[in-house]
Amino acid sequence: MDLPTLDDVRQARQGLRGVIVPTPLQTSATFSARAACEVLLKPECLQKAGAFKLRGAYTKIHSLTPEQRGRGVITYSSGNHAQGVAYAARLMGARAVVVMPENAIPAKVAATRGYGAEVVFAGLDSLARQHKAEELVREHGYTMVPPFDDPHIIAGQGTVGLEILDERPDVATIVAPIGGGGLCSGVALAAKEAKPSVRVVGVEPEVCPDARDSLRAGEIRTAASIDTIADGLRVRRVGERNFALMRRYVDDIVTVTEDEIRQAVVLLAERAKLVVEPSGAVTLAAVLAGLVPTAGPVCAILSGGNIDRGLLARLLLEVPVA
Amino acid sequence: MDLPTLDDVRQARQGLRGVIVPTPLQTSATFSARAACEVLLKPECLQKAGAFKLRGAYTKIHSLTPEQRGRGVITYSSGNHAQGVAYAARLMGARAVVVMPENAIPAKVAATRGYGAEVVFAGLDSLARQHKAEELVREHGYTMVPPFDDPHIIAGQGTVGLEILDERPDVATIVAPIGGGGLCSGVALAAKEAKPSVRVVGVEPEVCPDARDSLRAGEIRTAASIDTIADGLRVRRVGERNFALMRRYVDDIVTVTEDEIRQAVVLLAERAKLVVEPSGAVTLAAVLAGLVPTAGPVCAILSGGNIDRGLLARLLLEVPVA
Repeated sequence: MDLPTLDDVRQARQGLRGVIVPTPLQTSATFSARAACEVLLKPECLQKAGAFKLRGAYTKIHSLTPEQRGRGVITYSSGNHAQGVAYAARLMGARAVVVMPENAIPAKVAATRGYGAEVVFAGLDSLARQHKAEELVREHGYTMVPPFDDPHIIAGQGTVGLEILDERPDVATIVAPIGGGGLCSGVALAAKEAKPSVRVVGVEPEVCPDARDSLRAGEIRTAASIDTIADGLRVRRVGERNFALMRRYVDDIVTVTEDEIRQAVVLLAERAKLVVEPSGAVTLAAVLAGLVPTAGPVCAILSGGNIDRGLLARLLLEVPVA
Repeated sequence: MDLPTLDDVRQARQGLRGVIVPTPLQTSATFSARAACEVLLKPECLQKAGAFKLRGAYTKIHSLTPEQRGRGVITYSSGNHAQGVAYAARLMGARAVVVMPENAIPAKVAATRGYGAEVVFAGLDSLARQHKAEELVREHGYTMVPPFDDPHIIAGQGTVGLEILDERPDVATIVAPIGGGGLCSGVALAAKEAKPSVRVVGVEPEVCPDARDSLRAGEIRTAASIDTIADGLRVRRVGERNFALMRRYVDDIVTVTEDEIRQAVVLLAERAKLVVEPSGAVTLAAVLAGLVPTAGPVCAILSGGNIDRGLLARLLLEVPVA
């Protein structure tokens, strides 16, 4: 298996200079008091295109030959990865095609098109989209930019870990969400290789603890349900490469309830003044639930901010938060 | 009149090192495209205590003698200034008293107490609060920390301008909200003395254009109404010192409608992933309304993020935004 190394992450970081926003860490007196340790927030919700996904997508497309880029790239995510690919491709003048479900949310279609990508609709489930994308690869010679199970994607997402350690070398624990495992595996690889004493904790919704179960079982398990408000984490199986890296580098995987996720979204808006989507708020939820070691500073990666405004409004109105 | 100078602002900045967050500028492709110029955001909503007010309050309390600090400080604002004073006083181990209206919003009372201040209730209008505070000064020897009409307060708020110029020396226009004029006068003083070619534009709600009228008339005018959603700008008259500085340094004062303010709050949450209160969003509203020169980068100061969560939810649900 072609796994990335710390050097790959460092190279990815070089390539991303001037492309991404470094998203400086934020501190929070409120969250630190509640967690009984210093809580740092890594606000990737403030990243271009609203999530960390640009890091991996750009790194991948940047690694292609000019000839490959000339033929164009394709992906089949309907969420943040689609926008990351579209944004990255435009920066490099490459054509991007995104396969979306026929019932895709119009705002997401518009955002993806807004970044210059061509949207192709196919079926209603993720398998139909993947097949359509693979068909278009065969037909047009596009290069596939997979959402997480790819060495360049992982190296790109891992740059989040290097930035955290550079800014706060004293960080004791880094907390990352797990969907397919691209962010968590990349950050764990980078952080543990650069500073072996740091702890890395992954977070999943309680309703789909497939990564935790996979780690325990020693082989990849499939989630029975993905019925979570954290739409970015609705992935049934982590990737092969992501699993191999998480086995090696991740110290623990914890789970949070749907209520804890909702509360974290509201607390982040109210106290930290950040709009964070549910998938990005699971890390703070885990910290506030006491699931993360509190010896030394804890950094919660807020992976994205692309939440529907109606959903954010409902959470602000309905979720009881002290 | 004891007006602050650029040196005072520079000294204030030294004193604030390690105390405030430098709130790095953010760029926005969306807003830049709409405004047809590069739009920079200065996110003071991410400042400690949720607004720029800590800068002035800390600078003022820091300027006192140990003996004065030992007797304690007092103020009579019920908004962000109260929290800034409470937070700053606690940092320096000084007692803080805040006089609030009897109908103060419980969340604001709790936040002020949360920062360790003692809250005293007095009457329902601003004059009653001010009189009560002055009475307590005479009784207990507290030092008054006024909300805007004070050289140290102005110098502290002016540090926002120096940070913007340091980070982006090429900025062409800086846009600041005007309530009592503390932020706008301080930023204008600092920015124009440090870089005379920069333009500084102040923004008021259309319903209370007293600063604009004052500048035109050459003397301070009183707002007939302060019925605006921008609660931080509900000030009937700018301060004497603030007026003197704005006359000298501010290039233009423009006004925005209540609808433009509401839309800017929603756009900032949806596109920039920032929770900004209406008073802090007037600057982006002015930029998007085409009221600010677009030759060169424009920096909109987002002065604070302390918006009631119910209000934010209603705006997200109700305000039509393209």
